[in-house]
Amino acid sequence: MAIVEVSITPLGTASTSISAYVADCHRVLAGETAIRYQLTPMGTILEGDLDEILRVVRRMHEIPFARGALRVSTLVKIDDRRDTRATMTQKLSAVTEKLQAEEDSR
Amino acid sequence: MAIVEVSITPLGTASTSISAYVADCHRVLAGETAIRYQLTPMGTILEGDLDEILRVVRRMHEIPFARGALRVSTLVKIDDRRDTRATMTQKLSAVTEKLQAEEDSR
Amino acid sequence: MAIVEVSITPLGTASTSISAYVADCHRVLAGETAIRYQLTPMGTILEGDLDEILRVVRRMHEIPFARGALRVSTLVKIDDRRDTRATMTQKLSAVTEKLQAEEDSR
Amino acid sequence: MAIVEVSITPLGTASTSISAYVADCHRVLAGETAIRYQLTPMGTILEGDLDEILRVVRRMHEIPFARGALRVSTLVKIDDRRDTRATMTQKLSAVTEKLQAEEDSR
Repeated sequence: MAIVEVSITPLGTASTSISAYVADCHRVLAGETAIRYQLTPMGTILEGDLDEILRVVRRMHEIPFARGALRVSTLVKIDDRRDTRATMTQKLSAVTEKLQAEEDSR
Repeated sequence: MAIVEVSITPLGTASTSISAYVADCHRVLAGETAIRYQLTPMGTILEGDLDEILRVVRRMHEIPFARGALRVSTLVKIDDRRDTRATMTQKLSAVTEKLQAEEDSR
Repeated sequence: MAIVEVSITPLGTASTSISAYVADCHRVLAGETAIRYQLTPMGTILEGDLDEILRVVRRMHEIPFARGALRVSTLVKIDDRRDTRATMTQKLSAVTEKLQAEEDSR
Repeated sequence: MAIVEVSITPLGTASTSISAYVADCHRVLAGETAIRYQLTPMGTILEGDLDEILRVVRRMHEIPFARGALRVSTLVKIDDRRDTRATMTQKLSAVTEKLQAEEDSR
């Protein structure tokens, strides 16, 4: 189980807007049943089997080309932890629990 | 107005867990009134004046050292758009509206 | 033809040094004949067919685990340009030629 | 002493080429005497005092805007090690020495 953040940016597209490309990427993700994902203001975070995720990231990377882009910059950050089954939810709650515990002890 | 994602990772800390460092970073952020932020499973996203944000990121980068780390890897991704006032909320809704529009037209 | 930068960082390894992991990654690369690569102080840059490169990156990501690490953070940045055949050498010379041209015109 | 990699990418600029922006960034760097730097095919690596470097990165980030870009994506990766005085040269030689040692022992 890995958590992977990906952001895919077309270069030289005349428009500064990239939301249409992101929406297309999410249509790809919506068809993947074995991968959980969430959209953030800076990218998409995927959770699941690393090889499955990388296969999907590879498809997402092609989307701007399919829409006419000639250069695409893709950033992939993998967090792969094998001592415990880390999920997106657990990573978040590990932090919020620590913040809550401190507040409670005041 | 810029949107900035930051992730701060201590290296060589014996433990694979980093949530305590992240919680400390969020205590720094909680004291900043001019910066909006949100925690994601892969980092923290900040919105506000770029110089203000970079000043806070610089402070966040020191936190693992203050807790004893001897090496820190920090990744900062800046999305700075000056043709329109982009916020975290607007970036997300630009995508979700496109996805919704397609669903509605089916 | 794509150019890809990768950096692979084991977390929670007690030591702040990661050069032994990087050396192992380069042993993997040395056996790949279809991929050109260069080591930089911040990562490894690979040039070749994108699918070939991603297959190798996937193997490199396993190396710290094989050496006992329990958590690995891997950052992959893909620069994929399809309007021209961009190589690492060409990217560098496009910049240095511009700098040289300016100096010559003084 | 920190080592920092930066890549600065203008979005929506019509052209896929960004070497002119990179050349301008290097003109900024050439005027900085306290910072060592090297150009790679994927970015620029800077070595020196972290605050000095971040000040220069902030100036480099403005360059595409000065050339007319309306959106800029900047990626900054900081490697800050305080148990030893790490330089770009030392990081590279730590790896190459390990590779050489293995070859010698064959």
